[in-house]
Amino acid sequence: MNDRLIGVLGGGQLGRMLALAGYPLGFRFRFLDPADDAPVRYLAEQVVASYDDHLAVAQFGSGLIVVTYEFENVPVATARALEQHIPVFPPPQALEVAQDRLAEKRFFTQLNIPTAPFAPVDDRASLDAAIERIGLPALLKTRRLGYDGKGQALIGQRADIEDAWRALGGQPLILEGFVSFVRELSVLAVRGQDGAVACYPPVENLHRNGILYRSIAPAPGLATEVQLLAETYARRVLEALDYVGVLAIEMFEVEPDRTGGARLLANEMAPRVHNSGHWTIDGAVTSQFENHLRAIAGLPLGDASARGCAAMVNLIGGLPDVTMLLALPDTHLHLYDKAPRPGRKLGHVTVCAVDAERLAERLAVVERYVLASTK
Amino acid sequence: MNDRLIGVLGGGQLGRMLALAGYPLGFRFRFLDPADDAPVRYLAEQVVASYDDHLAVAQFGSGLIVVTYEFENVPVATARALEQHIPVFPPPQALEVAQDRLAEKRFFTQLNIPTAPFAPVDDRASLDAAIERIGLPALLKTRRLGYDGKGQALIGQRADIEDAWRALGGQPLILEGFVSFVRELSVLAVRGQDGAVACYPPVENLHRNGILYRSIAPAPGLATEVQLLAETYARRVLEALDYVGVLAIEMFEVEPDRTGGARLLANEMAPRVHNSGHWTIDGAVTSQFENHLRAIAGLPLGDASARGCAAMVNLIGGLPDVTMLLALPDTHLHLYDKAPRPGRKLGHVTVCAVDAERLAERLAVVERYVLASTK
Repeated sequence: MNDRLIGVLGGGQLGRMLALAGYPLGFRFRFLDPADDAPVRYLAEQVVASYDDHLAVAQFGSGLIVVTYEFENVPVATARALEQHIPVFPPPQALEVAQDRLAEKRFFTQLNIPTAPFAPVDDRASLDAAIERIGLPALLKTRRLGYDGKGQALIGQRADIEDAWRALGGQPLILEGFVSFVRELSVLAVRGQDGAVACYPPVENLHRNGILYRSIAPAPGLATEVQLLAETYARRVLEALDYVGVLAIEMFEVEPDRTGGARLLANEMAPRVHNSGHWTIDGAVTSQFENHLRAIAGLPLGDASARGCAAMVNLIGGLPDVTMLLALPDTHLHLYDKAPRPGRKLGHVTVCAVDAERLAERLAVVERYVLASTK
Repeated sequence: MNDRLIGVLGGGQLGRMLALAGYPLGFRFRFLDPADDAPVRYLAEQVVASYDDHLAVAQFGSGLIVVTYEFENVPVATARALEQHIPVFPPPQALEVAQDRLAEKRFFTQLNIPTAPFAPVDDRASLDAAIERIGLPALLKTRRLGYDGKGQALIGQRADIEDAWRALGGQPLILEGFVSFVRELSVLAVRGQDGAVACYPPVENLHRNGILYRSIAPAPGLATEVQLLAETYARRVLEALDYVGVLAIEMFEVEPDRTGGARLLANEMAPRVHNSGHWTIDGAVTSQFENHLRAIAGLPLGDASARGCAAMVNLIGGLPDVTMLLALPDTHLHLYDKAPRPGRKLGHVTVCAVDAERLAERLAVVERYVLASTK
């Protein structure tokens, strides 16, 4: 009876939460992940192998109803090979776009979604040309495999150019104009096989040392116009890619233009469930994990409304006193079964409340405990 | 690293939902269940063996931090044997009381918790004496191993006595006076290792063919006095047993007495998470499953408040059109990965709403789909 078996490329915490959301819907799971200590290892079948091990990928694919991924650096070739035999959602083209910052920014631009100014950098000469065009400060970034603030260097002034080039030169790069933004928002949206779309309310994200530290949902004080703009952009991306599943887009909210119009600059997209959507497990009618599975399995989407106000705080590097945390009102713990290591996401805490004021009070207490343990 | 490994006797749907609630808290699970197609089989370690297989029980117990059970007909001797080495919660004495309807009714009586009139029946003569004392109609029940309406016979009039005796005679029985009740309620309460108690709001239960079909939470129109009485009784039981974990007590709400005082008759207790508490996954701040685990692991209890109104409908014997169900607002599916069989609980659906009126509307739609598939 494998008629409910879903294959997931990647067996990290996102895969773990997909499985936890999917068992109640009657699904079973098989993961492919090279790590033998992957967070999914105790709660589902796992093929321990590299993503480009053809034999292992074939074994992984056997008998699946659909394949998805929880990690956007899965080789596109692997997704394409699986697609010959099994539906793969989100479409591998989304992986292709999201894996290359330059392709991603060009894609946004094609869809009339504004971004920070950017230019490709392939050698020292094109870096100079890019700086000439974009100005400083700017961020030099690798086009591929950057995450959690890795693979980027800030060029604040001309004197920083050499250091940035030494750190990152010799691989395909992109220079991005440094944008002065009010805050970072992200919008999560899900599209079903029938083209139906549901959007979660945009959330406000705060990073620390390049790693997402906290999300507040819905983003406090968000103008309706900004929310609608974020949703419009998300729908545009979903439709352009004939997308199926959950998509996250990180955006910068910048000061309104001279006419007072709302402005959002798309920064990057993740063609998968996303850390800034973890609050939906406790704080939305349908979690991002359940909605991703509903979408890829051809089921109707669930309501993406928030139940009230929620905030998510990542547990990074170390774990707080769990007993203290669990004694707090409407506070929910989510651990990933990962060994502690500095900068590593080990879990998250969600705190919920009926309104933004009460949420802020509760969040302050949660953060006090969490920050004491962050490494 | 087995410092978070919890052992569960029984690997049915209750065990499955315990595991799904426990992984986010950082626990891992090992189940003991004789069935090789147990609902937990894909999502946790399972020892497939009989509950009285000493060797298997020893293997099961190795390295656990605590043992619990999700099935109240686990042999008390097994729980007692494990208790020599590992904490077992709820205490095996609770199993002992709950496994025998006579012991259970006597226990309620000792605690000044009213029940229907009852008398032990060991032979034909004591059946006649019991009928003499209690009157008719009455229910003749086996003292052990009855569930979902099995092992009982209604004696409406003297002419039914022979049939009831033929069906059930030859084993320890109990005769219970047939009580005319307004409705069945159940109260779920949880007690921590530190003695803290949290009570879920009482729910209204409806049975069909002796099997729980539907629960509504909180019980519609429940008088505060009745709620407090239910909680008082639950606390009395928890304290008398020095209980740790979730306990369910099924009660009959009967017409107020001549002075207008609220009256509840305790019918039976389940020393475990309970079907009438499944709504808590989607409808309470902390689910019964999470609270049971918090209790047995020595963590603080979570808030047992309802988030709004919720109803749970069991999927019995067959599955409804899942696509239709998932398209309904705030409707949540929970499947147990069990093969369909008439009368078997295959899953449940929870529907939530902000108030009782909206809940009733949504519930009517859910029930229409569910009843069409019930076998």
